[in-house]
Amino acid sequence: MVLNPADDNFASKLHGLLPQDVFRPVEARYLEEPRGRYAGQAGILAVPRNVDEVATLVRAAAEARVPVLPYGGGTGLVGGQVMPEGPAPLVISMERMNAIRSVHPIENVLVADAGVVLADIQSAAREANRLFPLSLAAEGSCRIGGNLSTNAGGVNVLRYGNARELCLGLEAVLPNGTVWHGLSRLRKDNTGYDLRDLLIGAEGTLGIITAAALKLFPVPADVGTAVFVVPSPEAALKLLALVREQVGEGVSAFELIHGQGLDFLAEVLPDVRQPFADRPEWCVLIELGLPAGLKPVEALETLYEGADAAGLVLDGVIAQSEAQRNELWSVREHIPEANRRIGSVSSHDVSVPISAIPEFIRRGAEVVSAVGPFRINCFGHLGDGNLHFNVFPMAGRSRDAHENQREAVKRSVHDLVHEMGGSVSAEHGIGRMKVADLERYGDPARLEAMRAIKQALDPAGIMNPGAVLRA
Amino acid sequence: MVLNPADDNFASKLHGLLPQDVFRPVEARYLEEPRGRYAGQAGILAVPRNVDEVATLVRAAAEARVPVLPYGGGTGLVGGQVMPEGPAPLVISMERMNAIRSVHPIENVLVADAGVVLADIQSAAREANRLFPLSLAAEGSCRIGGNLSTNAGGVNVLRYGNARELCLGLEAVLPNGTVWHGLSRLRKDNTGYDLRDLLIGAEGTLGIITAAALKLFPVPADVGTAVFVVPSPEAALKLLALVREQVGEGVSAFELIHGQGLDFLAEVLPDVRQPFADRPEWCVLIELGLPAGLKPVEALETLYEGADAAGLVLDGVIAQSEAQRNELWSVREHIPEANRRIGSVSSHDVSVPISAIPEFIRRGAEVVSAVGPFRINCFGHLGDGNLHFNVFPMAGRSRDAHENQREAVKRSVHDLVHEMGGSVSAEHGIGRMKVADLERYGDPARLEAMRAIKQALDPAGIMNPGAVLRA
Repeated sequence: MVLNPADDNFASKLHGLLPQDVFRPVEARYLEEPRGRYAGQAGILAVPRNVDEVATLVRAAAEARVPVLPYGGGTGLVGGQVMPEGPAPLVISMERMNAIRSVHPIENVLVADAGVVLADIQSAAREANRLFPLSLAAEGSCRIGGNLSTNAGGVNVLRYGNARELCLGLEAVLPNGTVWHGLSRLRKDNTGYDLRDLLIGAEGTLGIITAAALKLFPVPADVGTAVFVVPSPEAALKLLALVREQVGEGVSAFELIHGQGLDFLAEVLPDVRQPFADRPEWCVLIELGLPAGLKPVEALETLYEGADAAGLVLDGVIAQSEAQRNELWSVREHIPEANRRIGSVSSHDVSVPISAIPEFIRRGAEVVSAVGPFRINCFGHLGDGNLHFNVFPMAGRSRDAHENQREAVKRSVHDLVHEMGGSVSAEHGIGRMKVADLERYGDPARLEAMRAIKQALDPAGIMNPGAVLRA
Repeated sequence: MVLNPADDNFASKLHGLLPQDVFRPVEARYLEEPRGRYAGQAGILAVPRNVDEVATLVRAAAEARVPVLPYGGGTGLVGGQVMPEGPAPLVISMERMNAIRSVHPIENVLVADAGVVLADIQSAAREANRLFPLSLAAEGSCRIGGNLSTNAGGVNVLRYGNARELCLGLEAVLPNGTVWHGLSRLRKDNTGYDLRDLLIGAEGTLGIITAAALKLFPVPADVGTAVFVVPSPEAALKLLALVREQVGEGVSAFELIHGQGLDFLAEVLPDVRQPFADRPEWCVLIELGLPAGLKPVEALETLYEGADAAGLVLDGVIAQSEAQRNELWSVREHIPEANRRIGSVSSHDVSVPISAIPEFIRRGAEVVSAVGPFRINCFGHLGDGNLHFNVFPMAGRSRDAHENQREAVKRSVHDLVHEMGGSVSAEHGIGRMKVADLERYGDPARLEAMRAIKQALDPAGIMNPGAVLRA
C-alpha cells in the first residue's frame, strides 16, 4: 500500500486538529541513532501531552496514510527509531508524557506514562521502598515506552525477567487511532488474547504504548557483589548452578567478562580501576540481593570456598563496601563504552541455550577466524544465555579496513547462533538492522503469522514501516 | 463462514490420511465438563501421537472447514473443552503426546509434550532437583497444553507467575495446519512478535499447542507453612506486606480462607482436620520457601510476633512437620470440594487490584444481599488479588430454588468487579461461559483487535469456534 509523506499539507491538517505547541521543529537528534548506521528523514515532529492527542495524531495519519514513527529515548541499537527510507514520517515523541501516574506500594505496582525516563521510574520505586529492577546502560535517557516496545533486557533479567515480565497492563493507541485502555494493575486476568505482550516487543509497528502498569518488587535487605576469576566459561556455568543452589532466586546478576574487554578498558579508559593486577582470561561479576537474616558478603565467601574446592575459581574479589561494589560494577558497565572507542567490525547481541554457551564461545571464535584475524570481546548476561559477541580489528588496524568483511563476520556468527538453537537478537530487537536476519532465520509459520497480524491490525501499514517486517 | 460437521464423509477422508489407531470412538467423558453446564457433541475423536499427525488433522479440517476442538485434561471450568452447538467437531485429544522430551537442569528448562499431565511435569522436575511451580487442584489430571492454553494460575502465582510466565517456547499447529517450531529454551529472544503469549491464553482458538519449553526453578532449601487468624481482610493485606518485607520473594503462597468455607468443610467433609477449635471468621494460609541459612519456622514465628504487635493476628498455627504442613494445606485444598457438595448458586473467579480487596469483599456482600439472602464463601489467592467469590443458598435450601436468581447474582458481582478495575475471569479463562461477559466488560479497542487477530490467523474460524469470541 502506498504511503504519503508527512508534508506541509498534512502539517496543515494536523495544526487544525491540535494546539500549536504539540508541534516542534525536527531537531537533528531525532534523525540520528547511537551507532550512526541510519539517518532519519525530517518529516513532522509531534510532542503530544496525553493519550487523546496521540490518538488524534494517529487517526489523522491513518486517514492520510502517512507513516508514524513512535519515538522514545532514541537509544535503540537496531535503527527502530529512525526511518531512512520511504515517505517522511510523522514522528511522535513521547517525551512530554513523562508523569508517574500513581504508585501502589501494597500492590507492588507503579503506573507511568510511556515517556518517563527509566531512571526516574527506578527512583520513584525506591522512594516507595520498592524496586523496579529493569536496569541497562541507557537508563538515564531511555524511556519506558521504548523499553517495553523493544522488550528491553539488561543486567537483572536473570532474576526479574525482561521488560515484558515486568509489565501488568498497557494503555496504547492502536494503528486505527483507537485507544486501548488496558492499564490493568491485576496479577491475574484471563479474559482473552494477550494484546499486552503482542505490543511489547513489536517495536512500534502495531501501535504506540502511551502508559504502562509496572511490577515492583521488595528491595532486597542487603546486596553483595563479587568478581570471581574462572578458568573457563564451563566453570562459570557450574558456578552459576552452585550459587543458585545456595541462594535460590537471590542471584540478581551473573555477568561474564572476558580479558579482551579488560584490555580494551586499560587501553581507552585507564581511569576505570580493575579488580585484578594480572588480567584474567575470564571472570564473572556476581550480585546477590538477599532477604533479612542472610549476609551477602558471607554468602559470597561461602560460595567462593565451595567453588574453590570444586576447582571453579582461580581468584576473587568480594566487595566490602558500597564504594567497592560500585567499583566492580564500573568495570562491567564501562565495557560497552570501551568497545565503542575501539570500534567494532561487527557486534552481535545473541543468545543460545545456557548450557551451549561454552561451545558457542569456542565455535564462534573459529567461524570468525575463518573470515580473518580479529579480536573478540565476548561478554554479557551469562545467566540469561545472552552474550554480546563483538568482533574488533586487530590492534593498530581500523574498523574501516574491514568494512567489506563485516557481512561475512555477521553471517558466520549468526549462522552459528541459529544452528545452535539461539537468537540473533537477544535483547536489542529487530529494528531495521535485523529485518533480513529475521527473514533468514525466523520460523516460516511464525513469520507468516506475524505478517497476518500486522496486516490485520495495521492494514495501511502506517506504524513504523520497515521495522521488524519489510514494508 | 459456514462450517461443516465432522461426519462420516470427513472421517473417511481422515482415515485415508492417517493410521487407523489415531481414531477412537468418542467416549462420554469427552463430551462432559466438570460443572455439568455444557454437553458436547459426538463428532470424531483423534488421538495423534506427534505434531505431524496433529498438523495433518488440522490441515484436513481447514480444507473441509470442519471445526476443531483441542482437548487436554478436560478439567476446564468455563466450557472451553466441549462444543454444545454448531456442526459436530473433530476433537483432537493430546493424551498420547505425553512424553517429557528433555530436561536441562543447568538451564532450568524442561521440554514436554502438550499432553503430559501437570503432576508428571512436577515429578520430572523434582527428579532433576528442580521445581516446576505450577500447582492447582486439577494437577493430577489436567495436561500442560491445556494449562498453557488457559494460562492457568493456582496457588504459586504470587511467587512464580501464571502459566504464561513459566513458558519459554512453544511448538504449535496453527489454524492453517502449518507447524510453528518455536520450542525455544532461550531466556531472551527479541526477534519479532510474541506469538507464544498470543497462543497462551487463547484457549485453542488460534492453534493447538503440541509441546512447550518450561521454566524450572531452584527448589527452596526449606519450606514452612502456617495458618494465621486475622481480624479482617485489611489485616490480611497488611500481613502480606509485612511478610514480604521480611522474606522478599520467599513467600510462595498467601491464601485467604473465610469461616464460611470452614463451616462447609465441617458440614460435608468432617474428616478434614481443622486447625482451630473456635472457627475463625478470616484466616490466611502462608507458605514460605527459603534458601539455605534461613529457617521457615523461625521466620514464621518472627512474622507472628511482629504481626501480633501490630494487631494483625488473633491466633495462629505454624506447622512443625511435613505432616502438619499437609494438614494445613488439606484444609485449603478441600474447600473447592466442599463447595461442590454444598452446591453454589453462582461462582465467580475474579480479581481486583490487591489494595481494593477489602472494599470488594464488603461491597460484594452488599450487592449479593440486594438480590436475596445467600451464604458467601470468599477465598483464594489474596496475594494475587484473585478471589473465588462463591454464592450459596442459605442452609436447608437447594441451588435449584435459586436458578432464576443466578444471572442476577452473577451480574451484580461482575458489574462490581468491573467497576473496581478488576477481571471477571482471573484464572479460569473465557471458554463459552464468559463470552457475553467479555463482550460486556471488555475494552472495545481490544475486542476489535482480538477479532481482527482471530480473523487473520483463522479466517475460516475452525479453531474451537464459540470459545472466547462468538463464532
